[in-house]
This record gives sequence, structure tokens and C-alpha cells, in this order.
Amino acid sequence: MTTGTDRRHINEFGAAERVEGCFAITNAQLGRTRNDKPYLRCLISDKTGELPGRMWSIDEPTFNRLPTEGFVWLEGETQPYQGELQLIIHAIDRAEPSPEQLRDLLPSTDKDIDAMFADVVAMLGTLEHPAVQALAQAYLDDEYLMQAFREAPAAKVMHHAYLGGLLEHTLNLLRLADAVCPLYPKINRDLVLMGLFLHDLGKTRELVYDRAFGYTDRGELVGHIVEGAIMLHDKAQQMMATTGQRLPAGALTVLQHIILSHHGVPEYGAAKIPSTPEAILVSMLDNVDAKTTIALEAARPDRAASFDLGGNFTQRQWALDTKLYRPDPLAG
Amino acid sequence: MTTGTDRRHINEFGAAERVEGCFAITNAQLGRTRNDKPYLRCLISDKTGELPGRMWSIDEPTFNRLPTEGFVWLEGETQPYQGELQLIIHAIDRAEPSPEQLRDLLPSTDKDIDAMFADVVAMLGTLEHPAVQALAQAYLDDEYLMQAFREAPAAKVMHHAYLGGLLEHTLNLLRLADAVCPLYPKINRDLVLMGLFLHDLGKTRELVYDRAFGYTDRGELVGHIVEGAIMLHDKAQQMMATTGQRLPAGALTVLQHIILSHHGVPEYGAAKIPSTPEAILVSMLDNVDAKTTIALEAARPDRAASFDLGGNFTQRQWALDTKLYRPDPLAG
Amino acid sequence: MTTGTDRRHINEFGAAERVEGCFAITNAQLGRTRNDKPYLRCLISDKTGELPGRMWSIDEPTFNRLPTEGFVWLEGETQPYQGELQLIIHAIDRAEPSPEQLRDLLPSTDKDIDAMFADVVAMLGTLEHPAVQALAQAYLDDEYLMQAFREAPAAKVMHHAYLGGLLEHTLNLLRLADAVCPLYPKINRDLVLMGLFLHDLGKTRELVYDRAFGYTDRGELVGHIVEGAIMLHDKAQQMMATTGQRLPAGALTVLQHIILSHHGVPEYGAAKIPSTPEAILVSMLDNVDAKTTIALEAARPDRAASFDLGGNFTQRQWALDTKLYRPDPLAG
Amino acid sequence: MTTGTDRRHINEFGAAERVEGCFAITNAQLGRTRNDKPYLRCLISDKTGELPGRMWSIDEPTFNRLPTEGFVWLEGETQPYQGELQLIIHAIDRAEPSPEQLRDLLPSTDKDIDAMFADVVAMLGTLEHPAVQALAQAYLDDEYLMQAFREAPAAKVMHHAYLGGLLEHTLNLLRLADAVCPLYPKINRDLVLMGLFLHDLGKTRELVYDRAFGYTDRGELVGHIVEGAIMLHDKAQQMMATTGQRLPAGALTVLQHIILSHHGVPEYGAAKIPSTPEAILVSMLDNVDAKTTIALEAARPDRAASFDLGGNFTQRQWALDTKLYRPDPLAG
Amino acid sequence: MTTGTDRRHINEFGAAERVEGCFAITNAQLGRTRNDKPYLRCLISDKTGELPGRMWSIDEPTFNRLPTEGFVWLEGETQPYQGELQLIIHAIDRAEPSPEQLRDLLPSTDKDIDAMFADVVAMLGTLEHPAVQALAQAYLDDEYLMQAFREAPAAKVMHHAYLGGLLEHTLNLLRLADAVCPLYPKINRDLVLMGLFLHDLGKTRELVYDRAFGYTDRGELVGHIVEGAIMLHDKAQQMMATTGQRLPAGALTVLQHIILSHHGVPEYGAAKIPSTPEAILVSMLDNVDAKTTIALEAARPDRAASFDLGGNFTQRQWALDTKLYRPDPLAG
Amino acid sequence: MTTGTDRRHINEFGAAERVEGCFAITNAQLGRTRNDKPYLRCLISDKTGELPGRMWSIDEPTFNRLPTEGFVWLEGETQPYQGELQLIIHAIDRAEPSPEQLRDLLPSTDKDIDAMFADVVAMLGTLEHPAVQALAQAYLDDEYLMQAFREAPAAKVMHHAYLGGLLEHTLNLLRLADAVCPLYPKINRDLVLMGLFLHDLGKTRELVYDRAFGYTDRGELVGHIVEGAIMLHDKAQQMMATTGQRLPAGALTVLQHIILSHHGVPEYGAAKIPSTPEAILVSMLDNVDAKTTIALEAARPDRAASFDLGGNFTQRQWALDTKLYRPDPLAG
Repeated sequence: MTTGTDRRHINEFGAAERVEGCFAITNAQLGRTRNDKPYLRCLISDKTGELPGRMWSIDEPTFNRLPTEGFVWLEGETQPYQGELQLIIHAIDRAEPSPEQLRDLLPSTDKDIDAMFADVVAMLGTLEHPAVQALAQAYLDDEYLMQAFREAPAAKVMHHAYLGGLLEHTLNLLRLADAVCPLYPKINRDLVLMGLFLHDLGKTRELVYDRAFGYTDRGELVGHIVEGAIMLHDKAQQMMATTGQRLPAGALTVLQHIILSHHGVPEYGAAKIPSTPEAILVSMLDNVDAKTTIALEAARPDRAASFDLGGNFTQRQWALDTKLYRPDPLAG
Repeated sequence: MTTGTDRRHINEFGAAERVEGCFAITNAQLGRTRNDKPYLRCLISDKTGELPGRMWSIDEPTFNRLPTEGFVWLEGETQPYQGELQLIIHAIDRAEPSPEQLRDLLPSTDKDIDAMFADVVAMLGTLEHPAVQALAQAYLDDEYLMQAFREAPAAKVMHHAYLGGLLEHTLNLLRLADAVCPLYPKINRDLVLMGLFLHDLGKTRELVYDRAFGYTDRGELVGHIVEGAIMLHDKAQQMMATTGQRLPAGALTVLQHIILSHHGVPEYGAAKIPSTPEAILVSMLDNVDAKTTIALEAARPDRAASFDLGGNFTQRQWALDTKLYRPDPLAG
Repeated sequence: MTTGTDRRHINEFGAAERVEGCFAITNAQLGRTRNDKPYLRCLISDKTGELPGRMWSIDEPTFNRLPTEGFVWLEGETQPYQGELQLIIHAIDRAEPSPEQLRDLLPSTDKDIDAMFADVVAMLGTLEHPAVQALAQAYLDDEYLMQAFREAPAAKVMHHAYLGGLLEHTLNLLRLADAVCPLYPKINRDLVLMGLFLHDLGKTRELVYDRAFGYTDRGELVGHIVEGAIMLHDKAQQMMATTGQRLPAGALTVLQHIILSHHGVPEYGAAKIPSTPEAILVSMLDNVDAKTTIALEAARPDRAASFDLGGNFTQRQWALDTKLYRPDPLAG
Repeated sequence: MTTGTDRRHINEFGAAERVEGCFAITNAQLGRTRNDKPYLRCLISDKTGELPGRMWSIDEPTFNRLPTEGFVWLEGETQPYQGELQLIIHAIDRAEPSPEQLRDLLPSTDKDIDAMFADVVAMLGTLEHPAVQALAQAYLDDEYLMQAFREAPAAKVMHHAYLGGLLEHTLNLLRLADAVCPLYPKINRDLVLMGLFLHDLGKTRELVYDRAFGYTDRGELVGHIVEGAIMLHDKAQQMMATTGQRLPAGALTVLQHIILSHHGVPEYGAAKIPSTPEAILVSMLDNVDAKTTIALEAARPDRAASFDLGGNFTQRQWALDTKLYRPDPLAG
Repeated sequence: MTTGTDRRHINEFGAAERVEGCFAITNAQLGRTRNDKPYLRCLISDKTGELPGRMWSIDEPTFNRLPTEGFVWLEGETQPYQGELQLIIHAIDRAEPSPEQLRDLLPSTDKDIDAMFADVVAMLGTLEHPAVQALAQAYLDDEYLMQAFREAPAAKVMHHAYLGGLLEHTLNLLRLADAVCPLYPKINRDLVLMGLFLHDLGKTRELVYDRAFGYTDRGELVGHIVEGAIMLHDKAQQMMATTGQRLPAGALTVLQHIILSHHGVPEYGAAKIPSTPEAILVSMLDNVDAKTTIALEAARPDRAASFDLGGNFTQRQWALDTKLYRPDPLAG
Repeated sequence: MTTGTDRRHINEFGAAERVEGCFAITNAQLGRTRNDKPYLRCLISDKTGELPGRMWSIDEPTFNRLPTEGFVWLEGETQPYQGELQLIIHAIDRAEPSPEQLRDLLPSTDKDIDAMFADVVAMLGTLEHPAVQALAQAYLDDEYLMQAFREAPAAKVMHHAYLGGLLEHTLNLLRLADAVCPLYPKINRDLVLMGLFLHDLGKTRELVYDRAFGYTDRGELVGHIVEGAIMLHDKAQQMMATTGQRLPAGALTVLQHIILSHHGVPEYGAAKIPSTPEAILVSMLDNVDAKTTIALEAARPDRAASFDLGGNFTQRQWALDTKLYRPDPLAG
């Protein structure tokens, strides 16, 4: 069985190209064809893109072995259909990709994860209050969680929706705060930085990203916001038990409040409206990074989408409630 | 020093009446009079009502001993002012009321707390799933929490805003559910009853009710909804560690979801929209009891407010977004 | 001409199956094919489901005989198309189904209509006030209306959208009220029960359900809420003229108010906001039954839809503003 | 006992002026003074204004004879209080004003009611369809209703809130429609004119205006919109029974729809959204007349309020969601 | 090369019809077919309708010569596809239509543009204030702008979305105002008429209509409302400089305010809420004409759309938030 | 006549203190006392606070000389009234304060205006594009405008509502942008900085601040947002005419768009939704500075208000839709 890494990527596929290798599969469904024969309908993807897949004769035992979302080895052939490519599958089976293959199958940050993580650690090293410092260390010492923090995407869709996206977004925010806090001397920088470090950590439990990007049941029913507050509840107790350090009265509450309120308004999922200067700043900086990133990715992408024929405006960006004007009139 | 219980209650005060005894005080503020002398401005209350208090000459040491919200012994005299009574205070000092006095000072349910609590225990005894039963028992065994559950009001204002109100509201809901669940055989009654028992327990930490009714800082910044979910997180772990019983997979998540979603929509504080049949039913029954209670208390009170001169409609009830029509055309 | 009852139902159709019999038709439209020939495009249904129909050569006189919504006799053949079945029609003509056939063509309650109606009558027999009792009797004596009440669906789509659904929903609500009223002694049970009996009766004139389920012109322009109030205006006058009984002053107004306000808020069609305790309770119980029923039908249906491949969440239910979590963690 | 018409009007009162005569009273309440003596607190008005009244010693029998809203004969004295006048009452008793006195006590249109009514009749004489003509005649023949139509205000507050205001507003609208309809030849003028004549007739039952302006219980619980539709239901049946004329199919429904939808959107009380061209036009013309009238009365009143010291902007007009700029830059 | 005017119009096309002539093209995009060959995907239109076009083999130089939106000469053949016609293109090239051809390609008013413009000029001749008269004249003397005013559509979609539509809509409004102003003697008619003349003039720069109807970049980023205010700023300065006439203090501000506020509320694009009686009237009359026109065009069109099979209700009209009832019950 | 600078400031006034000097007056109104004598009711302020003023006998000529908003010389005496001070005026007359006195009468930034302006100039010196540089210079060369820019407050109430506040807020934002832009390399820094410099310049014409802080008529009717776009329209034309430099195509439009959209959403006054990455960033940074400043001023003011008795929460801040938690748990 060939491994994924030596095949062409999906964004390189031409028409009528023979394909063999390891892919991600989502939305696997059993349809019934014309003659009441079962057929497979699914989406096939790797880190570079996705295309619809069809397997016109599939026996139910084979189908039952396939994951609804997960990984498969397949061979088949591309075929144009209504102006787009689809993949006609000849053979398919469940597969367990190696870590190396996995990196090839899911979209991922193009930054260096180790370097970004080191920057986060360094930034947290600038915290001044010893108990907050100790709390940060307790998180950094949690290897299982930090591994997830390094890998998780920051979202299912929207901004930073790729492996390493949570780390990248968090680091961006720490840098933003580092630049902005000095302009407001009364702001407590420790609370802002610690709040930003913690604000989306619940996403490590809200999102699944080992097959496709989606929400866990717990993500749907509890959500990363409350999850993050519960994680902090546990971690603070553990830190205080282990180190003997005590968080000052109110500090746990205020940090939980920052997590619970960082979406700003209830309509966007905030459990509380930001009610301390630091909670307000955290919520707004999160917004600045998310929206600026979305706007720049949409209006000035690194690579134009292949079939994009231009025009001065992008599609409507629902997170921004508008379409974007692309030209920079001062450029070139 | 006389105790509160042998004095007349505030709703019995006449004009120019001499007053001495133990009262609740709120909103204690220091003003400056005409000649730049400090004076005391406050609200004085017992379980039957409140009236404004003024002490025209007070030295700062005395003022500093007074609680902003709490209890005082005082003597003074009632005086009509702009058609209402106020209390001119001659002497005042901080006081620590006995439990008996306390019952005289704060509004309280007129039901029997022991009997209501016994009914809740009996209702929880009908839970069928052994692990849910064990979880309920773990709560019932938490004496400190149960004491708070018996005493807490259900709200600062609005419905059941009196000592014992949380217990009364919870018992009402368990009875409602007991009556309604049989009509929907696919509803899991255990989840509904357990969900209702837990839904407002976070209010024991959100509200203070030992002096006046108000929110704790943690109530303002975290809130009873998330607090209840965290309490369940702890209690479930403790129960499983202690009893060896395991909650089925997903049960903790689903119960936390019921707590987090019971306010129905984010605008009313729900951290999640109710997304299981049981969460939907819990949220709606909570609404039925709250609004029916508010409507009946407003339109058909046990005792008409003394200065109320009638009319067919009540004042606007903001929780109901309307004023209420009082007459029952079929009555008498 | 074969009758519907001896043919296979639509949910049993396989591919390439020959079909002959009586069906419901909706959305009948004349298209123009490639060579400018007219063809028929429509939806064909019976009580078990629906599928798209096409007749590739149809002369205009035949088309003009067909109802846009109504019943036809047809023969044809099923054909898979884009993974779903469609019905290629060879011959078609207008048909007048017998009452027996009709029951086979429209979705219908699976409860016993006579038994449910008897339960409603019995429930109304518990009304205490003689004039309200007489008013109820005047409705029950209106055979034409009661026939419609027994047959009408409760909605075009949403909950109880099948023949007998209005009766089933009304009976559910009377039972709910019967269980809930004793918990609120100040509630006037007569007003609640009578209000629930009347609240949706206008739907007998708002909906058509003799061919497909839809709105009458009067339903669109006046609506069941105002219609129900007008019907009560007439019925009360007739009762008082016939029996000499007089409704107490205000009773007609209060009952009309319950009808006019039962949708709760103007955005959902209420002409008034519920402003008596009974109007508030009626509106909330209606909501409890509607949403609980929708939630249970979606999350725990009697029969899984055939092509449904599972997953823990349903599609988004727009009436609940969420998708639903299916598993009951305490079950099995 | 002196009658109202020979005394000075409230807007002419000076300080320390002796007053005797017939007045309207509203908000009559019993307070308790300093020495626990009852006193009367109320508002005293005639058609030119209102001022607060106080009677410092009143026995309960006298108070109990007074109407909460209604008419009284009184003698007393004006007294400045906090920069405004109040009326210190020495003697007071219930009174039944003559029709002539009544006209002196309630605010009223300054147009000629007979002439306006004649104009409405003339306008309805231009209706073309004989059945609509007959329907209009049936309304005009209803003397009791027409008397109310001539007298009623168009609103409790807001625009045309004076006796004769409903007639004045209706005539304005008929004239507007007469001017506008010719610009839209496809508009059915009969429906627009008849719709405008009927649109607010329910206000004759929604408002009380024989003492002060207020809502009837039925106005609060049913409202003029549904009331108008019920009145039309009755009147159309009566007209068809009496004259043998038949309204064309759908005409009653469409006219009821115009009444039910004339407030435009549910948030403003519409039971249906306007869904015919005529309903849309009626709703918009009603809006044009109401808002233009409010704007002109606020920005360019006939008489400046006496204490108004000017400024270029009025107070915020909540019906217009803004304050208004007064100057007309092109004027003089 | 044949010109457009002697060919059949798109609404007359049959299946398999040979087509040659000048057309408008929009949405021109390059797709890749099955064998990775480029193909052209576009929409082809004239003033009578549009249909999808495909050219299965096109070389890139040819494609690059084509405008994304503009005009082309083409030859090809109609072909039914999925029940609708599409145009298979055999040859295509950029074209510059003559003015005569242009009139054939874009939808246009069926009224006489010269006559309408003369009516506008006459209406402006009734302005009374000399400086406002001079300002109007300055606009009328701006030939370039007046040419655009005569040609521009009033909208991209919605009402009056055809060449000459802006002029037609403006004239309608001037006539409406001429009929309505006399009913409100305190309204300054000059401000209303001038305001209506100016209110949408910014659309001459917001919309492009020389190829298809769309927004200019400046239209998207600045909009016709602010543009109109800037144009007035320039024009008033120019008029005052040229003629020596001075607008009274505040007149420019008030006219700009009318332009800025004519959409009524911020959600619909108003930069200010209408805050003078004239601004309120302008905004409401604009609404009356827009909605009445939309309603009549939808419910009672001059020509039924060819495939429309009737029914009493139109599709939902999103500008009216409802579907419309078509029948006029009093007609015929 | 004494000048203001040698008298005590309002926040230092005690009871029964004799007062003489120059003050700001607002809300000057003529009331009528008890005996129908005119009296003066007004607010008296200097830069440190305000208090109500009353002059019990004033002749109309004197009153007519007083400005409604402006400056007066007065002598009088403070008097406690209902627990607060009021100023009983014995003599009053219109006054023209010297610039020095003016600084004493209006609240003002405590930063150095010359230094801040120099920093703005330096920041604009870092613009890279020569035409944008030239445009900035054209603004800086407009002495009249720059004088206003240095003096104007940034708001009537809310944040930076003091003389010099516009300059202080603008400089804050330039610094914020200078810190943030490097984190987003694709952002055009010139557009962000120039956009921030221009975004509120219209406030120099929207606000009056030479007597009290208020809106000009033009501010109410046109507003600083559109005004700023018109100012840029003029300034860009002037710069291009004077210098021969040309702004690149689209640059004027994009800068006007930044001004028009900087309030983010129409409900907050934006004429357009931000639709370029730079417009989005400008709008969000404006929000960050405004809200952080409001939060810090409310929760951690430089000087506690004198009568503030503490508590952990501030009053509700309507701009933040919440009350704020004051303690910083990590402090001290």
C-alpha cells in the first residue's frame, strides 16, 4: 500500500488522472443507484483541498468498514463533472495514517510550531505576579494539554482553521497585547496575557481535528467557553495544592470571567458581558486579530484561488457582514 | 438592648411613633448637611417592608462601624415626609441578630421548609437509574450545600425572592415535571428531575441573603449557570470516587448542558441553546413556573398593597412585558 | 381503474417498479422540453411519503384537466435519478378518491379519532361554570365544525401536521392543563381548559387539508387567530340567544384575549401579549406541547428515515433554533 | 353650583387665584399625611390644560364618592409649588357635567365636526362598486356608531388625541387617498377609500373619552384592530341580509385584511403584514398622515408652550425616534 | 456583422434556434472542461431577458479580449438543458454597440424620456424661493449630469430598475408631493420638491448602467446618499459663486439632511434619521412610491411571466416582507 | 470685576460660602415664582464641576441679556438644598472671559497640547506615499482647522469629553496603530495612519466647545462622519490643485470610506460597513481606545468622586452595557 506523501496533492490533480494513496474522507454516505444498487457518496481531501468522491458499486460490508469521518486508502480516477473534478473510486478501505501521513492530510499552519510555542513560553515568562507565573507553569507542565494546544486548529471554519491555528492565534494575541498594554498604564498586563493564553484553551476539547475538523459532542453541548472555565477551576486547585502558592482572592474569578466573557456579547456565545478593563481589552484584541486576519486572507490571499477570475470585490464575508474591496490604491 | 421580635413591624408603623429594636440596613451613605456636618442616609427594613432613614448628626467613628448592608440596633422616631414615612434615627450601632431575629428581618417563604425539603428528597427517591440516584444522594449528603439550598432565595427580585424561595421553586418544578412527564413517554424522567434539582443550585453561591438580597462578586462575574456546571463537575467526580458508581458516558455532559441551557436563549443568560428533549422541557417548565407565579402574585396577591386604589390592570410587569388584567370574570 | 388501497405505498417503492393507482398531486406545472414540447413537473404523494413526477409528453387539454393540488389516477414507472427515485408517468387523469382512498393518501394520526374526541368531550364535561359549560356544549353541538375539528391537521408543517393532528394536539393540551392547574390554586381552570379547546379552532378555516395541506386565502389574509376570535363572537351570541344563559361580563373578552394572545409575542403572530394569568398559562402550555413534540419526533423518531446514516445530532430544527443531540445517555 | 363655562380656563390661572367650578379629575388617590390623616392627591383638568390638586383634609366618605376618573365640582385656590401651580382644594364633590360643560372640559378638534362628517359622507359617495357603496351606507346608517365616530379621539396620546380627532384623521386620509390614487391607475380606489374609512373605527370601542382619554378593558385585551374586523364581520352580514346586495367573493376578507394589517408590522400591532397593494397603500398613507401631523405639531405648533424658551430642536419625539429641527430656513 | 435590432429578442427564442447578433454579456468566466480545455461560461442578455451561454472551446486570447461585463457580437445556437434554454456559442468577439443597439440591449422605461424630463423641469419651475430656484437651475444647466439623470436606472434590482427609471421615479415623487403638500399648509413645499429632485441624484455615480446594472466601486464604498450630499456641497458653492445668489443660512444643511436621511433608518442606509417635517415627508413619500410600485408590478404585472402557472399569491417579495394576494375582488 | 482664576473652584465650595467671579452658565430658563414673579433657573459650572443656580428676583431685561449657554459674572452664596449645594445668585451679568479665564471654565486635557500635536506631526512624518504625505501636509497647513483640532473635545459626553480630547484620542490611536501594524505585514500602514488622523476631524464642526459642549445644528443634521468626508473632498482637490501631486486612483474613495465606516455598524452611525482591511482595522482600533479608556476611567479613576462610598462595582456604563468590577486582584 502506497503512502500519501509520495503522491500528487489534490490541488495538483488534472482531469482523468489515476490516483492512489491515503486520503481523508468525510460525509461518507450510502446511496442507492438506478438499479437499487448501493453506491458510496463522500468527500475526499488532503491538506491542499477536497473533491467529491463516488464509488458506483460498493458492497455493504466494505461500506460498513469505512469511517464516516476518518482516513482511507483508495485508488481511482479523476473525472470532470459539471465543470469540476470528481473522483471515481475503484477500491477503498479504512486506513490508519502514520503521523507523517497525517501531516499531509490535514491543513496546517505554515509557521514553525516549535518556534511559536517557544515564543508563547517566553511571553509567559514575562508575567510578574508569582502565583500567576506558577499557574502558567502548571499549564505548561501539562504535556498532554500542551500537545493539544500545539496541534489544535483555532476554529472549524473561519480564521486559523488549520492544525497549529490555535497556537498561532494565541501567539498573535500575546504579541498584540505586549504592544498595546504599555499604552494603558492602568491595565494589569498579567491578567491580559494570562487571559489571552487561557481564552481559547477549551477548544482543545471542543474540536476534533484528528480526522476532519468538527465539534465534539461535548463541544456542542458545553462549549469551549465553559470548558475553559472548568479547566481553570481544576488547574488552579492543582497548582495551589502542588506548589503551596495561593492565587490572591478574586484572581481565579477574574480569570474565569475573562474566559467566559471573551466573545463579548451573549449572541456570540459569551456567558457574561466583559466587566473588567482587562476582560474588555482581551475581548476586543481577540476581535482585532480574528477580523483583521479574516479580512487580509480574503482580500489579499497568498495564492489566488485557481478559478477566481478577479473583480474588485470578494464574496461576502459573513463574519464581517460585507464583501471586501481588494485593491490597495497605494500599492504599486 | 431590645430584640427585634417584641417590637412592631414596619408595615404597622404609624406617624410619630417611637421605634427601638433590631433592623436590617442597606445603602448606608454619608451625606453632608447644610453646615457641612455629616449625616447618615440609609434604608431600614424588616421582613414586612422598608422605609428611608436619616440621622442628622453622626460622628464618623459611629458611621465607620456601621455595615453598608447588614444589621443594626437603633432607636428613633417615624416622621411623615412628602406623604410617606421616614425614620429619624437618634442612636444606632452595628448588631449581630440571633437566628430568631434574623427570621424576623428578612422576607421568607410562608411554607414549611422542612416539609418542602422532605418532599424534594422523596421526589429524588423516585429516580430510577442507580448512578443518577447516587449522584442525587451525593448532593443530599452535602450538608453545607443543602443548608444553603433550604435557605436561599430563588432570585434577588422577581419570583420567589425570599428565604426558602429556591427550595419552593425547585419543589414546584419537580411536581410539575412529575405531572407532565407521563404525557411524553419518550422523555427520560430521570434527566428531567435531576436537571430541575440541579438547575438553580448555583444560586446558593450567586446570591447573598444573610443581610440583604444581592449578588456576590462571583455571581456577577461567573454567574449561577456556569457555577452550577462547575459544582456538578466536582460533585460527579467526588461521587464516582466515593461510591465506585460510574455515570454512563455522556450523562455528565447532558446534565451540565441542562444547567447551562435552562435560561433558553443567550439574551437571557443561557450559555447554550437547549439541545436535547429533556433540556428543552426543563427550560420550558422553569419558564412556566416562573411566569405563572409572577402573574398570580401580581394579579391576585394574597394581600392588596395598602395604598393600592385598584383599577382593573396592574402596573406593567417587565418580566411579562405587559400589565395584567386582574378580574377573573368567572369568579363570584 | 384500480383504487389506492391495494397498491404498494410510496415508502415501499423500489427502483424500476411499475406503479398504478390513486395519488395526491401537488405543485403541478407545465414545463417546456428541449424541442419546445410541454412536459409535466409535479410532486406525487400518499400518506407515507412523496417523490417527484415527470411526464415527458403531455397535451395541454390533459394538463388543463389536472388539479394544481388534488388527486389523480396515474400509471408509470419509478426511475432512480441523482441517487433518488422519481416517477416517470405514462398516463394521468384527475380522480375523485373515495373517503377510504383519501385516508390512504394524506398523512394521518395513528391514534383513534373517536376515542380522542370522546376524551375531549369528557374533559369539557369537567368545566364548572354553567355558562362556560353551555358555551362548550354549543361548540360540541356544531356538527360541521366538530367534524372539521376531528379531521384538521394542527399545522401545515411543524408539529402535528397530519389529519387528526389538531384534535390530538388539543387533547394533549387539555391533559397537560388538567395535570398542571392543581399546582396553581389561584388559576381559573375553566378559563384555561376552555381557552385551550378554542385556541386553535380557527385552523379549521385557515388550513385546507382535503387535497394537500395548505393555507386558504382567508388563512393567509386573516389567519386562524383572528378567525377563532370571530367564531367565538358568533358562537357566544348564538349560545346566549338559544339557551338564555349569559356569560358573565368580561368572560367573552377574556376568552377572545386567550385566543388572540396564545402565540405569545407579536413576532410569532400574537395580536396581543398574554395579559391574564390564564392567557399566560395557555400560551406557555401550547409552547411546551409543541416544542416537546417537535424535539421528540426529531431526536427519537418511531422509525428512522431510511437513508439516515446516523450521527449524534439531527439536522437543525428551525422551530427550536438548534440541532438536537439524539442519544439518551441513561438508556440501555 | 356654578357651571364650568363661566369660569376662567386652566391655562389662564394665575397664582393665588380663587377657583370654583366643574373640572375633570383623574388619578384620584388617597394619601396619608404626617399625622396619619387622609389627604387627596389628583390631577385636575379642563380642555386647556391640567394641574395637580391636593386636598389636605378629606373624610373617607367624601373620597369614596369621588370618581377615579370623571368630573367634579370644586372650590379652592391656586398655589405656586416648586415653580409650578398646584390647586389646593377646599371643597369637592362628584358632578355630572351637562353636554355643554363637557365640551369645555375635554380637548377637542378646532375644526367643524358637522362639516368634516359631511365631507366624509361625500367622499364615500364617490365609491363605485354598488356593494361597497351599500356597505358604506350601512355604516353611515348606524347612528350610534356614527355618533361615536364623530366624537372619538384618534388616540390616547400621540396624534389627533382630542375629541373629533378620529373623524379629522379619517377625513385627512380620505383626501390623501383621493389625491394619490390617480397616480397609480392599477390601485383599486374603492378598496383604499373603504379601507381607510374602516381602519380605525374599532377605536370607538377601544377608547373611553367621556371622562378622560383611556383604553377600555376590551381595548387592552382585544384592541381596535381585531375589534374593527369583528365589527365589519357583523356589518357586512347585516348589510347583505337587509339589502340583498352581496359583496363579491373575497371582498370581505380583503377589507378585513386591510384593517388587520394597517399598522404595518407585528411589532406595532398589525395582526398580518399588508399583503395586497391596497393594504400596503392604506398602511403607508396612515403613516404619512400620522407622522407628518406629529412632526408639524411638534416643530411648528400653533401656539408655543408658555414656558418654552426656545432652542433650535424640540424634545425627542418618540414616535419619530428623534428630536426635530424647528427652523424653516426658507421662511421669512 | 449584423446589428441587434433586426434579430429576434431573447424572450422570443425557441429551442435549437440559430442566433447571430449583438448582445450584452455578464459574468464572463473561464472554466476548465473535462480534458483540461478552457471553456467560456457567461450570461447573455438583451432588454427582454437573459439566458446562460457556453462556448466549449475558446482560446485564451479570445477570452482575454472579452469584457467581464459589456457587449459582444456572437453567433450560436439555442439548446434546451434541464428544462431551460442555454446558448451554445460558436463565435464571439467584443463589440461596441451603437446607441440604437444599446437601447435594444438594456431594459428601459416605456415612457417618453423627453416628456418626463420636461415635466420635471416644469415642476421645478414652480419653486418659489429665488435661491432654491437658482439652485435647481444650476443642476438643470449641468448637461452632463442631466444626461445621466435621464438615463440612469433607479436601482440595480427592485423598483424602477431600468434605463430612465431614476427619472420616472423622481417625476412620480414630484407629482405625489404636488398632490400631498396642499394638505399640510405648514410644510415648506420648496424644500420637499427640491429634496425629492436631489434625493437620488447620487445614483448617477453609484450605478453603472452602460453595460449591465451594477454598482461602481465608489458606489459600494461611499454610496449614493453621501455622494448626493457632496454633489450638493459643490453645486451650491458653484451656484452662489456664479449667480451671486445666496442660499439662506441653514438651507444647504437642511437639503443635505434630506438627502442623508431619505432612507429613514440607519439599517436601510440613512446616515441620519429624518429630523425636519420636510425630511420626514420626503422619506415617507419615497417609500410610498417604491413599495406601491413594487406591489403593483408583482401582483398585477402588465404581462404575466411566461411560465407562471398562477395561484392567488405571488412569490415572497422581500422588499415587502410578504407574498402578495393577486385578485382584486371588486374587479370584473 | 474679579476674574475667575483667583476664586475657589466649584469642587472646593462649602456650604454658606460667598461666591464672586466668572462662571459658565447653561440651561438658563425663566420660571415664575409663587407671586408670579420671574426667577432664574440655570446650571453654573467651571472646569471642576457644576451646581444648580437660582436667582429669585430677576427683571426681564437682565434675563434677556444672559446667554442660554455661555459665560457670566455673578455674585451669590451657596446654600444646601436636599443634601446638595445650590447657588443663590444676588447679581449676574453676561461676561466675556479672557482666554485665560476660559481655560479655567471648561474641562480640559491634563496633557501638554503642544507636545501632543508635535507627536501627531511626527507620526504623520512617517507616511511613505508622497501623495498621502502631501495630503497630510495640506491638513497641517490649514491653521484654522489645526487650531480647532488641538482644542476640540472628542465627544460631548463619553470618552475624552474635554478640551484637547480629540487631539489626545487621535494621538492614542496613531500610537496604537504604530504598535499594531507591524504584526500584519499586508496592512497598508499609510492608509491606517491617515485614516485615523482624519476619522474624527469632522467633530471640529460637529461640536461646539467654546461655551459648553454640545452639537451644532449642522452636527445634528449632517454629522461629523459625512462632514469629515466632505472636508476630505475639498482638501484633496485643494492639495492636488496646489501641489500638482495626484492621489492614486481610488485613494480618495478609500480614505472617505474609512471615515464613513469608522463607527462599524449603521446602528452606531456608520454610513457604510467597513469593507477594506484598513477600514476594518481603523474601526476596531477606535473601539479599543474608546472602550478601554471608558473602562479605566470608570473602574480606576485618578480621583474617587468625593461622595462615592465604594462597593466593588461601578454604576452601569451604558457604552459598555455593564457595570464594572473595580478591584484588580493582583494589585497590592
